[in-house]
Amino acid sequence: MLFARPLAELIAELEKLPGVGPKSAQRLAYHLLRVPDHEAARLADSIQHAKQKLRFCSACQNISEHEVCEVCRDTRRDLALLCVVAEPKDIAAMERIHEYRGRYHVLHGLLSPMDGVGPEQLRVKELLNRLAESEVQEIIIATNPTIEGDATALYLAKLLKPIGVKVTRLAHGMPVGGELDYADSATLLSALEYRREM
Amino acid sequence: MLFARPLAELIAELEKLPGVGPKSAQRLAYHLLRVPDHEAARLADSIQHAKQKLRFCSACQNISEHEVCEVCRDTRRDLALLCVVAEPKDIAAMERIHEYRGRYHVLHGLLSPMDGVGPEQLRVKELLNRLAESEVQEIIIATNPTIEGDATALYLAKLLKPIGVKVTRLAHGMPVGGELDYADSATLLSALEYRREM
Repeated sequence: MLFARPLAELIAELEKLPGVGPKSAQRLAYHLLRVPDHEAARLADSIQHAKQKLRFCSACQNISEHEVCEVCRDTRRDLALLCVVAEPKDIAAMERIHEYRGRYHVLHGLLSPMDGVGPEQLRVKELLNRLAESEVQEIIIATNPTIEGDATALYLAKLLKPIGVKVTRLAHGMPVGGELDYADSATLLSALEYRREM
Repeated sequence: MLFARPLAELIAELEKLPGVGPKSAQRLAYHLLRVPDHEAARLADSIQHAKQKLRFCSACQNISEHEVCEVCRDTRRDLALLCVVAEPKDIAAMERIHEYRGRYHVLHGLLSPMDGVGPEQLRVKELLNRLAESEVQEIIIATNPTIEGDATALYLAKLLKPIGVKVTRLAHGMPVGGELDYADSATLLSALEYRREM
């Protein structure tokens, strides 16, 4: 007997979370036992609440509290621009720069044949359905500069160009503030390829 | 608008956990949205369940599902030995060595005047009440080999010796500055064997 049963169960559940090992799970469990009841209840409730209230926006597939998400309902958004991202968290990253004023489409993953992820597993069909009756003129592909991100970007470009829409992709290059000396060759090569006239 | 409200609330609650920063909180939240409903519900329920079902053992102050914990109810335990630890997790560490057969007392903290923790904030009164009518012959102080652990051990030794009970402390075979909870069983076992009267 190392732990009382409800404590052992809580530790076991916490251990299932990504990046939480046995030690962290123990620490989190003891923390939750220490905090006031209402504080632990708030965490438990927010988990249940999020699971119950959140769904995918019927337009962009982002996580949303409503049938159509806030971004898609925002009439000030530029309907000619559509940014395709892999995950909902990527929208948060784009929004943080306060510059992009178009809308989004979330693929919910990237092509990865090794993991059995093909176009059918992504929200590609939903993207095509959207484009059929939209004013979109440019699609900005904002997938990560990784093997999967590159493959997905290439696949989408081939699929979307015949529709007659402009397809662009976020530039790969030196991170701002970075040092040439420390950049890896692949990044430097991309920076060279994406170079622009000043 | 970066996140739908229930998602933002979930992230905010997760961020309150120790060692969980904004990025980890986001990752955990997205993970919970991805897993099946019943799995997220199990985590939420186990938090609530643990808070509702667990209390402090009326004898040793350990976290327990019952009025008196399993260790204190175990009749095979040696009633002459009492091991004083700072936290409930330290009992788990001691039990893992499978050598100590006495009972425990949990202080729920260590003396730390800087943080305003004096003897009144610890379960010292409960320890004295227990000793008044017990068969305890030796008290093994198993506080961490840290400044606070040393101060607490010295304080308890001064307090307990006049009662006529033998007071010992785990040997400093443990790396100084380390934590009981992180010590390997072999180190902890030798620390138990080399304990010395104070």
